[in-house]
Amino acid sequence: MLKTKLFGCALGVSVVLGFLAPVQAYADQAEDAIKYRQSIFTAIRWHFAPMGAMLRGKMPYDAAQFKHHADQLAALTHMPAEGFMVAGSDFGDTKAKAELWDNMDDVRSRFDTLISNSAALATAAGGEMDAVKVPFGAVAKTCKGCHENYREE
Amino acid sequence: MLKTKLFGCALGVSVVLGFLAPVQAYADQAEDAIKYRQSIFTAIRWHFAPMGAMLRGKMPYDAAQFKHHADQLAALTHMPAEGFMVAGSDFGDTKAKAELWDNMDDVRSRFDTLISNSAALATAAGGEMDAVKVPFGAVAKTCKGCHENYREE
Repeated sequence: MLKTKLFGCALGVSVVLGFLAPVQAYADQAEDAIKYRQSIFTAIRWHFAPMGAMLRGKMPYDAAQFKHHADQLAALTHMPAEGFMVAGSDFGDTKAKAELWDNMDDVRSRFDTLISNSAALATAAGGEMDAVKVPFGAVAKTCKGCHENYREE
Repeated sequence: MLKTKLFGCALGVSVVLGFLAPVQAYADQAEDAIKYRQSIFTAIRWHFAPMGAMLRGKMPYDAAQFKHHADQLAALTHMPAEGFMVAGSDFGDTKAKAELWDNMDDVRSRFDTLISNSAALATAAGGEMDAVKVPFGAVAKTCKGCHENYREE
């Protein structure tokens, strides 16, 4: 029942959303989708963490390193959403709450904000640290908002 | 001893390679580096597999889907190399052979080829299937070459 609902939902949003369009169908896709989106979030953390460490004074600020991480983060933010659009991927080894699939408009909007905020951070990066503090904070807030609403502790 | 050698090697290549420059230093970095590069390869497989399935006739060919996957693949190919540049990441839960760290010039060259072949595939994608067969084959060959030389079965 839930799977049927989810599948309908996934088909629906795939029509609406350009960046989520490739809802594929091949073997083991639900399990692969969970691994895929978790992998993207692991990679996002890899690039996010040193930027945070630089801004908190835990690492020396290096404008080129910061820019590198901001660029990779901006590329990665285009990727995780499609991992939630696959039928059956609300089961299995996932920390995503069931509420996520009941609020796809909100989830879509939050991913759009993550993409645009990360692009703004990448644009701001490459020079003085003061220029990246506010855009980095905006990205961090976007991450936190989604985690609080749609991820189990 | 090996760690010392690796660290020197990582420092050396970080000077040589622009795209591998961010050799960072923060806690648990070796373990995180292994998880990071494995995550990128998981994401690469997610985008690579449906392109291969389309070309083998296992999925209907869809030019827009193919283009989407080629674009994401091209972005991802810039990412895994830095996960091998971290001191100590030749130990632990990794399938990478020790030979990889003894042949960093070759590894660097292979990652450069992966990046350029994937960019060529993304450029070719978006239209007729015939246009992507050769560039997709070039990407597949690059993957296979590195796996055969530097990855345990």
